[in-house]
Amino acid sequence: MRVIFNEEMKQVADDLDRMAQRVRSAINGAGEALLKQDVEAAQAVIDGDIEIDALESSVIDQCVKLLAKQNPVATDLRVVVSTLRLAATFERMGDLARHLAEAARRTYPASPLPAEAQDLFAQMQDFLNVTADRMVTMLSDRDTKTAEQVIMDDDQLDVLHRQTFALASDENTPMSRQQVIDVILLGRFMERLGDHAVSAARRVVFIVSGFDPSKEPTRDEGTDID
Amino acid sequence: MRVIFNEEMKQVADDLDRMAQRVRSAINGAGEALLKQDVEAAQAVIDGDIEIDALESSVIDQCVKLLAKQNPVATDLRVVVSTLRLAATFERMGDLARHLAEAARRTYPASPLPAEAQDLFAQMQDFLNVTADRMVTMLSDRDTKTAEQVIMDDDQLDVLHRQTFALASDENTPMSRQQVIDVILLGRFMERLGDHAVSAARRVVFIVSGFDPSKEPTRDEGTDID
Repeated sequence: MRVIFNEEMKQVADDLDRMAQRVRSAINGAGEALLKQDVEAAQAVIDGDIEIDALESSVIDQCVKLLAKQNPVATDLRVVVSTLRLAATFERMGDLARHLAEAARRTYPASPLPAEAQDLFAQMQDFLNVTADRMVTMLSDRDTKTAEQVIMDDDQLDVLHRQTFALASDENTPMSRQQVIDVILLGRFMERLGDHAVSAARRVVFIVSGFDPSKEPTRDEGTDID
Repeated sequence: MRVIFNEEMKQVADDLDRMAQRVRSAINGAGEALLKQDVEAAQAVIDGDIEIDALESSVIDQCVKLLAKQNPVATDLRVVVSTLRLAATFERMGDLARHLAEAARRTYPASPLPAEAQDLFAQMQDFLNVTADRMVTMLSDRDTKTAEQVIMDDDQLDVLHRQTFALASDENTPMSRQQVIDVILLGRFMERLGDHAVSAARRVVFIVSGFDPSKEPTRDEGTDID
């Protein structure tokens, strides 16, 4: 059973599912572009972002219409407000994936990353691919366990992200200035993708259970930031 | 007259004004910290961020209560939904200012920036200080002209931001790896602050006039991204 099962909200629920699937494709494609110098995958991610943006606009319009109905129920409001936040989160994830793809396209046929960074970024991409799958599942299956896994596992990405700093700041590892810049920025985009996945997971937990995990103290203060 | 003048929404309007003022303080303080190695200013920004987060939570809670009232009017809904987006934008701006302050504190008493970058970052900070003043004014005075200036002037910050890349990638300008990283990341945080100010300005225009500038094609595709 889906996260949003209210019949009135069926169209919105469908749009959110579509957004999650498109964001997963964008994340997958950004990885192919970045790590395998697949310029067609890069272009597909760049071109596909406009549809994610359009879905967000559609979700906002539909939520405003739903709110205009008389006699809203408390539960419905929580779902509608959470839906707006989910859509905003997915839209930003699409943009982050687009930035990764743009970097890959910019340096094609070379990689933007130095050879020493490939393995680390491959690990981060593997993590993001798993996270993207979980994001689709947690929505379509109303699955708070999967959502909780996303929240708990984010530390692993933070560990990898810190390694991008170790690598880039190591004066003994030869790297052009541009490569230093790309290691840091692309690592940041990936880390932010993970943070947004955690935000999305918290919204799912809230929609399903009424419990708001973002009101609990978190170890990682960086999670909800831009 | 304020942007949100509906009596029922007075408390929310007050909270948004408070958020804008706190964000302005945070931006000003981050600049003092970063450019003048004012570590107390840095700590004040870091400590003050929790209050910006608390205001966002308060705004969300109040908006949900307002939405629960019967017979919502179309205009009220637009204001409530825009308010949620404004509060989210301000919260992220507070976090970005905090990141700037954390960098200043990290390297204190030295600056995180190399000497060659000081002037460029001073220019970006001046721009952000003006923008922060405009943000407070556009809310308290229901001032779409000021909001439109924020939107139009953002290009100036993008020009300066591009110069951080020129500086950091110039192999002939001696800089440690860490300084390269800081020039790029701190420049990015400042650029994102400007982007978020544009988002906030668009919401103000929408609340006041009903016209949604974010649905117009923009030159800068980067504006609404994370």
